[in-house]
Amino acid sequence: MKRLLVIGIGAGDPDHLTLQAIKAIAATDVFLVVDKGEVKHELVQLRLDMIAEHGRRPYRIAEARDPERDRTAPAYAAAVEDWRARRALACEALIRDELRDGQTGAFLVWGDPGVYDSTLAIVEEILQRGNVSFAYEVIPGISSVAALTARHRTSLTQVGRPVHLTTGRRLAEHGPTADDMVVMLDAHCSFAGQDDFHIHWGAYLGTPDEILVAGPVAEVGDRIRELRAEARARKGWIMDTYLLRRQGH
Amino acid sequence: MKRLLVIGIGAGDPDHLTLQAIKAIAATDVFLVVDKGEVKHELVQLRLDMIAEHGRRPYRIAEARDPERDRTAPAYAAAVEDWRARRALACEALIRDELRDGQTGAFLVWGDPGVYDSTLAIVEEILQRGNVSFAYEVIPGISSVAALTARHRTSLTQVGRPVHLTTGRRLAEHGPTADDMVVMLDAHCSFAGQDDFHIHWGAYLGTPDEILVAGPVAEVGDRIRELRAEARARKGWIMDTYLLRRQGH
Repeated sequence: MKRLLVIGIGAGDPDHLTLQAIKAIAATDVFLVVDKGEVKHELVQLRLDMIAEHGRRPYRIAEARDPERDRTAPAYAAAVEDWRARRALACEALIRDELRDGQTGAFLVWGDPGVYDSTLAIVEEILQRGNVSFAYEVIPGISSVAALTARHRTSLTQVGRPVHLTTGRRLAEHGPTADDMVVMLDAHCSFAGQDDFHIHWGAYLGTPDEILVAGPVAEVGDRIRELRAEARARKGWIMDTYLLRRQGH
Repeated sequence: MKRLLVIGIGAGDPDHLTLQAIKAIAATDVFLVVDKGEVKHELVQLRLDMIAEHGRRPYRIAEARDPERDRTAPAYAAAVEDWRARRALACEALIRDELRDGQTGAFLVWGDPGVYDSTLAIVEEILQRGNVSFAYEVIPGISSVAALTARHRTSLTQVGRPVHLTTGRRLAEHGPTADDMVVMLDAHCSFAGQDDFHIHWGAYLGTPDEILVAGPVAEVGDRIRELRAEARARKGWIMDTYLLRRQGH
């Protein structure tokens, strides 16, 4: 039997790794990597550094190219679905061709594998297709949500009250749905105009490039937009998230 | 200046500790503990084991007694507020009396300090009162939410969709507010009757006593109630949480 580990590696700080993740990395024979071929991308390098530090030789790194996602498609969920199906084929081929029976393979996932990440759905899809069989386990990680609130030294939740995790797209379409919201995957600064809210924003959380801004949206919103645009232009990519909290709550 | 660390130590598995948490524990001079005087409680012992394994001598453990919370009060938020104010006084005394300038003190918090935990609000309250001053940092931890979804090998979120974190009390009062909900602090099995939903339930996550049940609420709800009651009676305490997902989503 092949064994697969889906390992949460935290939000960007190598010290976010748990002992469980470190042991899982040490137990891995083949690291399965699906990426966009950007060999110099910092996140790719950071992951390789983690493998170099915690992997136990002999191990191998097996790579496949990530299919392009159609970012111009109007139907977001359908476009993601299509991309995921093609990515699943690439992952299936990796597991089938690169992992022998008795070996342990691993996908290293930024943040927590349960939070807006496609890997678990892909693994389930591969199992359901039935072309390759394997046992698998999931190792939780420090999500960007936990990293964000820790760096801002604020609680995600308030006493007895709910918090909604949602996407920038949904915030833009539906407006606020709760007094406390975490917004992820927001390329368009959908917090703009939410002047009843306080924002805790963070980019590149846990890395040396981390940027944190907090304050009323009406006061700091423009600065966040500028910082975000500058940083994205300078580094070529950005990962950010934020907590919106209705003022007076 | 005194320095205070609020360290997330994960959901119950000692291997949930991050490298950052381990370094923070090693940097601590005085571990500040506020508990109910149940010296034999497993969770207290588990925390002491972590300190023994990762603490760097010489360190001290300074304890204060947790004030009783009025669980009969009809106004939940007010009762929590009152308990928190008295707990804040106990914590303030610990920081004032047990921690010298230049020393580092730490509160070890189960799960992630941002998720339904009172420590950060208490620390802010102490700082605002102004009787004692200190710098402080928060170290994120593996929350019971991340542990739950990892053990069930399911994603917290679905593509482009929101998830609501809420409490058993609110679910009982307001009913479901989303297709995906995580429910915490539920002593009354408020999932009962939510027959449109699938449940992923977990108790004592990450510990040798872990119990996992998943299935349609209509099919597994009664079994969860029984298992929960049995386990609680046997061990004298329970910590559990669950994900509700509307069927067909």
